Amino acid sequence: MAEPVSTALIGYGYWGPNLARNLYQNKAARLSVICDSAADRLADISRLYPGVRTANDAAAVFADPAIEAVVISTPVRTHYALCKAALTQGKHVLVEKPIALSSAEAGDLIALAAQNGRTLMVGHTFEYNPAVLKIKDLVDKDEIGQVYYVYSNRVNLGRVQRDVNVLWSIAPHDISILLYLLGAMPLEVSARGATYLSEGIEDVVFVTLVFPNNVLAHVHASWLDPGKVRRMTVVGSRKMVVYDDVDSEAKIKIYDKGVYRKGDPIYGEFQFRLHSGDIYIPKIDMSEPLQVECAHFLECVRTGQRPRSDGESGRRVVRVLEAAQESLDQGGVPVRVGEG
Amino acid sequence: MAEPVSTALIGYGYWGPNLARNLYQNKAARLSVICDSAADRLADISRLYPGVRTANDAAAVFADPAIEAVVISTPVRTHYALCKAALTQGKHVLVEKPIALSSAEAGDLIALAAQNGRTLMVGHTFEYNPAVLKIKDLVDKDEIGQVYYVYSNRVNLGRVQRDVNVLWSIAPHDISILLYLLGAMPLEVSARGATYLSEGIEDVVFVTLVFPNNVLAHVHASWLDPGKVRRMTVVGSRKMVVYDDVDSEAKIKIYDKGVYRKGDPIYGEFQFRLHSGDIYIPKIDMSEPLQVECAHFLECVRTGQRPRSDGESGRRVVRVLEAAQESLDQGGVPVRVGEG
Amino acid sequence: MAEPVSTALIGYGYWGPNLARNLYQNKAARLSVICDSAADRLADISRLYPGVRTANDAAAVFADPAIEAVVISTPVRTHYALCKAALTQGKHVLVEKPIALSSAEAGDLIALAAQNGRTLMVGHTFEYNPAVLKIKDLVDKDEIGQVYYVYSNRVNLGRVQRDVNVLWSIAPHDISILLYLLGAMPLEVSARGATYLSEGIEDVVFVTLVFPNNVLAHVHASWLDPGKVRRMTVVGSRKMVVYDDVDSEAKIKIYDKGVYRKGDPIYGEFQFRLHSGDIYIPKIDMSEPLQVECAHFLECVRTGQRPRSDGESGRRVVRVLEAAQESLDQGGVPVRVGEG
Amino acid sequence: MAEPVSTALIGYGYWGPNLARNLYQNKAARLSVICDSAADRLADISRLYPGVRTANDAAAVFADPAIEAVVISTPVRTHYALCKAALTQGKHVLVEKPIALSSAEAGDLIALAAQNGRTLMVGHTFEYNPAVLKIKDLVDKDEIGQVYYVYSNRVNLGRVQRDVNVLWSIAPHDISILLYLLGAMPLEVSARGATYLSEGIEDVVFVTLVFPNNVLAHVHASWLDPGKVRRMTVVGSRKMVVYDDVDSEAKIKIYDKGVYRKGDPIYGEFQFRLHSGDIYIPKIDMSEPLQVECAHFLECVRTGQRPRSDGESGRRVVRVLEAAQESLDQGGVPVRVGEG
Repeated sequence: MAEPVSTALIGYGYWGPNLARNLYQNKAARLSVICDSAADRLADISRLYPGVRTANDAAAVFADPAIEAVVISTPVRTHYALCKAALTQGKHVLVEKPIALSSAEAGDLIALAAQNGRTLMVGHTFEYNPAVLKIKDLVDKDEIGQVYYVYSNRVNLGRVQRDVNVLWSIAPHDISILLYLLGAMPLEVSARGATYLSEGIEDVVFVTLVFPNNVLAHVHASWLDPGKVRRMTVVGSRKMVVYDDVDSEAKIKIYDKGVYRKGDPIYGEFQFRLHSGDIYIPKIDMSEPLQVECAHFLECVRTGQRPRSDGESGRRVVRVLEAAQESLDQGGVPVRVGEG
Repeated sequence: MAEPVSTALIGYGYWGPNLARNLYQNKAARLSVICDSAADRLADISRLYPGVRTANDAAAVFADPAIEAVVISTPVRTHYALCKAALTQGKHVLVEKPIALSSAEAGDLIALAAQNGRTLMVGHTFEYNPAVLKIKDLVDKDEIGQVYYVYSNRVNLGRVQRDVNVLWSIAPHDISILLYLLGAMPLEVSARGATYLSEGIEDVVFVTLVFPNNVLAHVHASWLDPGKVRRMTVVGSRKMVVYDDVDSEAKIKIYDKGVYRKGDPIYGEFQFRLHSGDIYIPKIDMSEPLQVECAHFLECVRTGQRPRSDGESGRRVVRVLEAAQESLDQGGVPVRVGEG
Repeated sequence: MAEPVSTALIGYGYWGPNLARNLYQNKAARLSVICDSAADRLADISRLYPGVRTANDAAAVFADPAIEAVVISTPVRTHYALCKAALTQGKHVLVEKPIALSSAEAGDLIALAAQNGRTLMVGHTFEYNPAVLKIKDLVDKDEIGQVYYVYSNRVNLGRVQRDVNVLWSIAPHDISILLYLLGAMPLEVSARGATYLSEGIEDVVFVTLVFPNNVLAHVHASWLDPGKVRRMTVVGSRKMVVYDDVDSEAKIKIYDKGVYRKGDPIYGEFQFRLHSGDIYIPKIDMSEPLQVECAHFLECVRTGQRPRSDGESGRRVVRVLEAAQESLDQGGVPVRVGEG
Repeated sequence: MAEPVSTALIGYGYWGPNLARNLYQNKAARLSVICDSAADRLADISRLYPGVRTANDAAAVFADPAIEAVVISTPVRTHYALCKAALTQGKHVLVEKPIALSSAEAGDLIALAAQNGRTLMVGHTFEYNPAVLKIKDLVDKDEIGQVYYVYSNRVNLGRVQRDVNVLWSIAPHDISILLYLLGAMPLEVSARGATYLSEGIEDVVFVTLVFPNNVLAHVHASWLDPGKVRRMTVVGSRKMVVYDDVDSEAKIKIYDKGVYRKGDPIYGEFQFRLHSGDIYIPKIDMSEPLQVECAHFLECVRTGQRPRSDGESGRRVVRVLEAAQESLDQGGVPVRVGEG
């Protein structure tokens, strides 16, 4: 077996502990150092991971030649500068979503990684989620027929952010899933939101995305909601699929349901027939997506293989977010997304 | 007790049988005649209601001086002409929603009713639903604090229409509830939809409505969906309410939940605190809303009282639908609603 | 088509209206008369079924030679006498469950029906329920493997009886399903219950039934419970099935789940392996069981065919109830059921 | 603050890791050593808790004078001998439920602990569960009125044991909750079960318990079931409570529901009236019960206070299990429990 990749984790806030745990348990990595600016968090780290060094200066970590790879899990506004610094020092980088606050910045990072021959990967966790992979498979094998429309609800109470709004904080999940499932960029995006808790920071957004081939998508994201919902529905011409991430028994339900025309297609003398058949709940492998994601990153570092959620993937998601933000700022006017 | 109101029912398709049953059982009415163009339906009527006359010509019914009130439950595109004819003949009218296909037409009917001194009421059933009344009460008594935003999901499989799209067929429910709860017209509406089953007839729409005082609302309506959902969520500054019309045990859940700022309001040195307290499920009176609605109509006919969902209410709903349709037609561009 | 069977309905209390509606709508019957002792109910009948005669004296109905069949839906303690009188007058009889209050009485009625060559059927509705038929099919086709055990929960608030306890009022449903599914009589029954509302009338019972081949069954019935539950679980060696009668989307769930031994069967060096695979929700035909039941009764009357839930079936259910009551009376001591 | 209690954990199988984590994180304890016979588990421990010694010989641990308290989480059949050895060496003991396999053995341990002046506590986790405490409070404050009956369903697939049956493995939870809530011992117990996977080891049991004051209780436990259910229902004369441990939003629902007599109590001319009012879901503190339990044990060790779930409590649970097992062995015959 190859030598473990000497890895540093930058940021030990909300998500960092999950990354730490997964990196620590993965034999392909040696978690060498965890960096955070908060002293109490560093104390926690020392207690939980006695063999791991702590640090509070990311620059010093990046300058350490013994570190091969860094995993960045810091506030969104710092992603670009930290990724840039790490790549410049020749590190492989896995950065939390979104990769940056603009597609131009994302482009810089992609170029830098290419130039330095380093892996650049974005933590689009759901692209490593067995339930999402199952739906992707159903779509690709044409089991659900033509995809009509997809909508996603990702709401809960809490995790209110102060540096980015709910669009940039939560919706990257939905957008990365949509781009992955549909294998395409939206042509146009509109978004509408509202601000209640912090001036200028939307707490709730409704985003509509128009994809090629008359596929419509919709995302509702909020951190100010009574329920915890993480549900995506894919309506196809032959089957319909509901993915409910908080349902432990039935992550995915496949409905043999639809409406069909019956009658003469030429003279338009048709009627609609409902069909409502069996429901099927496939067994979904319950591996932790983050574990799969970390393993994939380490594999890509080792082999030079391009990650599934590479910098380009990160840039596409940011491009959609940018367009949605532009629409938000213009009171909901639809915005063309342009090239992917 | 007063004499029962001699009433005719026009249209015995999907909703008509419910109206017939309620009118038949209400002692304030004498259901004299039911009119429909389909012979098999007339046969059903004769069997179920042996004492009720059947007819297939609405004009003749309207011309009958013995009929005081008519209830119109026909395809949407016929509402205007039938209401006009009935009002012209001096009948009191209860018409299913939406009252007409344009606010101008609705205005005509309002004028005609006023001119002839007749009751004009629209079947906005949910304004007679005990659960909606309970939420209205919570809003009015300031129990939920400032209303932040409201969203509604009304989706199922079936009841696919051919004369109107899902916006005009299903969303009138949500819009009438929103206008009723918020006591205001939206300033602006955007809508996006897609068409899969019949050319030019949207099967799914996502509608965003901006109300005064920074209240945002959203409606998702579809007749091409795997589930049957009829759920509305009201997020307030103090409480949050979920109204689930298909939950027989808990139609309304009131969540004592919220996010509060804690700290110095002047220097902005605040933090967010989540509060998640008790949940309360008030007992909701289970009377059938349609029964309450029919009783209200008959009472208004008898006393001359203005109905809760009068012609103006019908016109306001149509005005919002018009604006949403205009936005749909323009690919989602926000449309000002103008005066109520 | 054959002449409709001239039918009388005796008893128009809780269940009677459902029978009336189904008999009225079935073209194989002519519902000639409905008999009840309460004047207000007779008035309701006249209004709803203008062509049907009302009566308040069952004996006179039985004496009417124009009546061929009677359907008895009266308090349990009257079943025996009414069936006996009807059969004696040569009527075909469909009687609500339980057929009588003792297996000896049930035996009398069976003999009388045989002697007079008349159909005797018991309203074990669930034997005409498509969900139960589906489970029977799964059992018979060995899809679930060896049946290990079955348990049933049938609880709600209300329908408190005063002439019989919850065992005789609600549990006949569960027992008729169990006998039907397992195709066998239990060897032994124990029951424990408690009395809170009316002296001597149990409000809740827990019944355990030991069937041949090491099959265990359990019934929990109550009319004093906060929820409305009608759920039966069948655990087999290969599959497990949950039948939830109040779940409109998923009446039946078939779980590909089990525990298997792995290892050497001889030296006992085995381990247990859990298997948890797909879940499958077959589409269940939603016909009203009572409609199927009425049609079956009319068909049997017409053809002389023996009903699925014939008198013998009724007697077997009563025999189990008797044993359970005996156990109840003896404080839970197990009671042998004896011959079926 | 007092010195932390030097603590050893014996057994690191299914439940041990949870105890290890809680003891490790509790500042009132110093987790000095973890003992297990499996080498791979010891390796896991070393990696997760680098500062904690590992051992594979419990006797040596008990002989270590530096150890003050031991926590025993081993197979049930070893509880008695290990507790005895630990108490004999003057250790304070927290042992997993059930404390022993007979009430006589439990009595020995109680005597030994008293003799040596040491704390003896049993891990009846649910007596430290905030949801159970809430129900206890509702019962004690007479909010639910007279307790009528209580039933508990604790079923799932898996955790199949080979040394004890499902009664001894799972039902101690339910029995400890029942004894705690009702503050009484049952007068009589009957139990019926069946064996499918291992000879002589019941996989499913149905247990009925008759308590004083006409309170009935029932426990259904199985490790061979398609669902994961952990639900207890308490039916009182004034309120009804459902405790669903796997419902994250509504652990406890309090139903204002009941059936009341209305009418003349003397001549028995009464009717039953159903009352179905509000439902209330109190906010339940989400502390981990095991954390509260460990803290309680350490507090008792430090202060000499008697634990809530002391040896006597452990003995009472075992006494009920014994009686239930006797009933099981005799095919369901009710067994008197005798003195508590």
